[in-house]
Amino acid sequence: MFMYLDELSMKEFKENVNENTVVILPIGAIEGHGSHLPLCTDSIQPEYVAEKVAQQTKALIAPPIRYGFCSSTRNLAGTITISFDTLRSLVYDILSEFLRNGIKNIVVLSGHAGRVHMAALRLAAEKVVRENKVNIMVLSDYDIAYDLLDSDESIPNDDSHSGLIETSRVMAIRGDLVKGKGTAGKDRPPKFMVLPDPEKYFPSGVMGDPRDASKEKGNEINDFIINELVKLIEDMRER
Amino acid sequence: MFMYLDELSMKEFKENVNENTVVILPIGAIEGHGSHLPLCTDSIQPEYVAEKVAQQTKALIAPPIRYGFCSSTRNLAGTITISFDTLRSLVYDILSEFLRNGIKNIVVLSGHAGRVHMAALRLAAEKVVRENKVNIMVLSDYDIAYDLLDSDESIPNDDSHSGLIETSRVMAIRGDLVKGKGTAGKDRPPKFMVLPDPEKYFPSGVMGDPRDASKEKGNEINDFIINELVKLIEDMRER
Amino acid sequence: MFMYLDELSMKEFKENVNENTVVILPIGAIEGHGSHLPLCTDSIQPEYVAEKVAQQTKALIAPPIRYGFCSSTRNLAGTITISFDTLRSLVYDILSEFLRNGIKNIVVLSGHAGRVHMAALRLAAEKVVRENKVNIMVLSDYDIAYDLLDSDESIPNDDSHSGLIETSRVMAIRGDLVKGKGTAGKDRPPKFMVLPDPEKYFPSGVMGDPRDASKEKGNEINDFIINELVKLIEDMRER
Amino acid sequence: MFMYLDELSMKEFKENVNENTVVILPIGAIEGHGSHLPLCTDSIQPEYVAEKVAQQTKALIAPPIRYGFCSSTRNLAGTITISFDTLRSLVYDILSEFLRNGIKNIVVLSGHAGRVHMAALRLAAEKVVRENKVNIMVLSDYDIAYDLLDSDESIPNDDSHSGLIETSRVMAIRGDLVKGKGTAGKDRPPKFMVLPDPEKYFPSGVMGDPRDASKEKGNEINDFIINELVKLIEDMRER
Amino acid sequence: MFMYLDELSMKEFKENVNENTVVILPIGAIEGHGSHLPLCTDSIQPEYVAEKVAQQTKALIAPPIRYGFCSSTRNLAGTITISFDTLRSLVYDILSEFLRNGIKNIVVLSGHAGRVHMAALRLAAEKVVRENKVNIMVLSDYDIAYDLLDSDESIPNDDSHSGLIETSRVMAIRGDLVKGKGTAGKDRPPKFMVLPDPEKYFPSGVMGDPRDASKEKGNEINDFIINELVKLIEDMRER
Amino acid sequence: MFMYLDELSMKEFKENVNENTVVILPIGAIEGHGSHLPLCTDSIQPEYVAEKVAQQTKALIAPPIRYGFCSSTRNLAGTITISFDTLRSLVYDILSEFLRNGIKNIVVLSGHAGRVHMAALRLAAEKVVRENKVNIMVLSDYDIAYDLLDSDESIPNDDSHSGLIETSRVMAIRGDLVKGKGTAGKDRPPKFMVLPDPEKYFPSGVMGDPRDASKEKGNEINDFIINELVKLIEDMRER
Repeated sequence: MFMYLDELSMKEFKENVNENTVVILPIGAIEGHGSHLPLCTDSIQPEYVAEKVAQQTKALIAPPIRYGFCSSTRNLAGTITISFDTLRSLVYDILSEFLRNGIKNIVVLSGHAGRVHMAALRLAAEKVVRENKVNIMVLSDYDIAYDLLDSDESIPNDDSHSGLIETSRVMAIRGDLVKGKGTAGKDRPPKFMVLPDPEKYFPSGVMGDPRDASKEKGNEINDFIINELVKLIEDMRER
Repeated sequence: MFMYLDELSMKEFKENVNENTVVILPIGAIEGHGSHLPLCTDSIQPEYVAEKVAQQTKALIAPPIRYGFCSSTRNLAGTITISFDTLRSLVYDILSEFLRNGIKNIVVLSGHAGRVHMAALRLAAEKVVRENKVNIMVLSDYDIAYDLLDSDESIPNDDSHSGLIETSRVMAIRGDLVKGKGTAGKDRPPKFMVLPDPEKYFPSGVMGDPRDASKEKGNEINDFIINELVKLIEDMRER
Repeated sequence: MFMYLDELSMKEFKENVNENTVVILPIGAIEGHGSHLPLCTDSIQPEYVAEKVAQQTKALIAPPIRYGFCSSTRNLAGTITISFDTLRSLVYDILSEFLRNGIKNIVVLSGHAGRVHMAALRLAAEKVVRENKVNIMVLSDYDIAYDLLDSDESIPNDDSHSGLIETSRVMAIRGDLVKGKGTAGKDRPPKFMVLPDPEKYFPSGVMGDPRDASKEKGNEINDFIINELVKLIEDMRER
Repeated sequence: MFMYLDELSMKEFKENVNENTVVILPIGAIEGHGSHLPLCTDSIQPEYVAEKVAQQTKALIAPPIRYGFCSSTRNLAGTITISFDTLRSLVYDILSEFLRNGIKNIVVLSGHAGRVHMAALRLAAEKVVRENKVNIMVLSDYDIAYDLLDSDESIPNDDSHSGLIETSRVMAIRGDLVKGKGTAGKDRPPKFMVLPDPEKYFPSGVMGDPRDASKEKGNEINDFIINELVKLIEDMRER
Repeated sequence: MFMYLDELSMKEFKENVNENTVVILPIGAIEGHGSHLPLCTDSIQPEYVAEKVAQQTKALIAPPIRYGFCSSTRNLAGTITISFDTLRSLVYDILSEFLRNGIKNIVVLSGHAGRVHMAALRLAAEKVVRENKVNIMVLSDYDIAYDLLDSDESIPNDDSHSGLIETSRVMAIRGDLVKGKGTAGKDRPPKFMVLPDPEKYFPSGVMGDPRDASKEKGNEINDFIINELVKLIEDMRER
Repeated sequence: MFMYLDELSMKEFKENVNENTVVILPIGAIEGHGSHLPLCTDSIQPEYVAEKVAQQTKALIAPPIRYGFCSSTRNLAGTITISFDTLRSLVYDILSEFLRNGIKNIVVLSGHAGRVHMAALRLAAEKVVRENKVNIMVLSDYDIAYDLLDSDESIPNDDSHSGLIETSRVMAIRGDLVKGKGTAGKDRPPKFMVLPDPEKYFPSGVMGDPRDASKEKGNEINDFIINELVKLIEDMRER
């Protein structure tokens, strides 16, 4: 019936939100994803997944955050990153407020999967969990998607940022925003080095080879993620 | 041609964004607005205004922030407030990143007009302005709308939160989210007192009388705001 | 009997301070107020009001803070501003300590009325109020004085910083610090713009026309403020 | 001619304040000082010294801060302490603003001599000094007064908080605020222990024996401090 | 000749430390590692590696930090964790000071490999790298060791905390601190859930099966790590 | 039996650590100490004392922190200082974690005795003490050693940084790290001045005259400190 948390009125909120309610908080980024994918690539993926999952689980979707923490892609044209501390505080504040409003089952679903970005989300959730009794799950939809790297032979092992998976998924979600096939980016920044300019190892904004991407592949991957997440939410509800 | 900043690809960003570009950052809130208006009332108004203004000024719209700082309405059902410091940091980070990407004309447009909330936005902007050469305008669309309190006799002088103006505007923007006529809320918290429970003076979530609100009135007010803001942006561009 | 909180000894404090005690915390600023008014203009006004109100209400006056947050006047000669965060922490710490010492009725009275400055005071008070049971009132004496803009025809509508009201009040309080009649400042910074140099629109440090100011007018305004504040304190005591 | 910095107008400030100007910032505390001395004991001493020194050196006095950091006396009735971080930020902000206004010679003169309180002042000054070219001196007038412990046989070696020196000085400065002779407090908290209730070792608020204090002794000590400080300022000016 | 940075005198430091110097900063943790391994398990491994690597590369070793950020093991007996912010600030301060002293090649080598812990180290390094020209490498020796999970069939795929690798390594480094063979811990906390008590899924403090661990295996793994790290440092020096 | 806290396993920790356990946290610095003493001078002294005291009192020693806050010696070659806030947070976190693990008797023993450095340690301890019931002692071994300045005529009154006491102690602890006799440094920075370059008054890194230092003297002083600290710990245990 309802899908978006903030479309409810005060009365509807009081009548419909209770300790069984699951709320999904989609988090994205504004990040350079090559010349074939839009800056909102990491935002539209979890927002799409959230909608499909909400339909199946009757979860509510909180207003998405399209601002994330980008590190190695920071200098690509169009990347708008917020600081680690801001991201952590933002997510902490929102999770705390969910709790103050009686919400006890929360999924923080990030389209951006950077390790430090994810650490901000986890730290926020850990603080809330230590202060309150609540179920919180923190994941990137890419934590699920990358399981396919081993099982799906059509996906190159080194597929990553703006690669085959990501391009296919965006083709399936917002095909109008995909401009051409993209170019392959085979280099990577040297391991373990912390660099001011890591983008010089992938100036195209691509890590992987998106040229065989397709809408069909995208639908397949999206469905895989949606199904997995539905199961995870069902498990969480039973805790 | 483009309206949403993050729908651009890296290439499109490089080709289309320059120091003449105007970017609008809409900021809303998730806030109890009575039983007739949705929690997203303060979000959908500036997002609507931003779209109309962007059409006329060729501005780009950055991903809206639907999380704001709510003080007197904090305890109303469904209000999700972030802290002052988080809001300030979030806006500061985003404005700084606009600049790092070469954007020099920015409008921070808030649908929520709380004084402390607006102070957070101004502080963020002041810090950026002191560090860089850039045009930043910070306002609530209610800063413009409330000019009508004096000039438009059909609007009660004490119209405020969830009142005639706000209800009319939402009727014009997302009529499907308006549930009934609302109830009048005539009391106010005592002046100057800082209270833990100011909402007990307006438990309905309404300050004012929304019962004569109409879609037509809403269109009229929205147009007034849009026109004024277009003029302000033109002035800013000439600075 | 006692007027200044910190002139009490430990013994006198224990015998005289209890949960009925009202404490007034005057807050000022060091801010350019034209060439006819002293930098302490915003400090001496609330300190004077506090003394008169304390006589009538038996309130105690805490040591005044003459450091505030100045934004648009920051670049005027002699302005010494502290940061928003420092001001907020300072007031929060002091209010918390009043409570730790058993004080339950507090008036934060600011001579400086800048919106962001006032937001710092309100945020400090809101935090205390949320953590404790206590009555706190936060206001500027100009919140009261500006009620006269509508009711008193002898005061120009656009009277503001260093204008007729302020000059008259200082003439009544510390006439020896007023040097001449001042000059009229009719311009204002453009609305909503956040500028690094707003003072270029009022280089004289005056917004308004102080030339008709008089000691008599000042006494009249001061009395009006004092009476209103006495009433507000009586109301607070009964809460 | 001028003594108090904030009594100047903008014009007077521009004409009289330059890089040779010395500004004294007096810092005090609101701290239990036994039943014979007022809570403002640590404030009125440096304010008195500052006035006398300003007369001799033509220094300007900035508005005093009567809020300091109290540790072992925190639980004495009437003690109002601000946090270490607030004190440090406050002093840092003010020193920075002095510099922004062209002031290059500053004396931070504290009446409270607690080690951690003094560390806050020093940290603030060190940060400013590292960022700018400026002369800053940070001291307590007790750093000077305690030199007398060795040289003046009339003062007991263990004289300390509210003892003979302090009582004598307050008798000389504000005799009307001294109530009786005070009582001797011979115990001390155990060395090196960090306690939640150190005051239980000196519940009277006195460390030392004030019973032989006199106004004459106070004048003598005050003069000694004033003379020493005048010399220190002269040395600083020549740097 | 020298191995430990802080065993140098000022003179030796000036003569021997220059922009070619490599400094290794070992970081560990105090963390429950089952009943067979000591709390310092994550500290002694990188300290041992650092010594061997320093011998081969003439690097200097900075004083190790034995305090890290532990999340899922926090509630195990004996775990002493510092906060994320403290760890980040500590590493940032130290890296900044290395730079202030002219050091331009730094290896941050952590024995603890928790994702959030590593994010703190990376954030610290990123900030330094953005402000200065310097080579910084941030890694856990387990980033290298876990490469063996694929290539070495004698190591179980799910080997982790206190498992075969870790137990073998400690046997080789400080065999006297290993008490018995340990017990196998096969469960894991549920994926993506943020829990207040994750240790209930591995109350023994072991994730993996240490029972086939041996000193010989440990020497083999340690040598593998040492050789890889020597190569990485040589690559870094040539950048 | 055990001496180092982090050499225990989880099982040993549970069996041996209880509310009677005393834990010593040694804190040092990396600080220029002339050309005859190593940078770790302030670290090895409290670590040595801690070992000897632990033997006599069955205390456990937590992993030492060799990073402290250095102010006047900051610009000497090799000094690595962390910020005041980092040091305070680090010690606060560790003390809090000791408590979370049931430890109730803690000695924070610093080899560095700088006033601001010690203030950081005290502030950390005060915060813990205010939140919990626990015995914490904070001291520098130099707080004890400097008692000898009055009683021991063989030590010059102005002995200080890198002087006779310190040199003798390091000769007794790690004679291999002492290079020659050192040079006398008789100057001192001017009193009360906060300087960016205080080291220009003691460019050799020595304040005092170390030339008559001896291993025998060092043993004598170390024994004095050890005996005093053992007594202090016994007193603490009885509280």
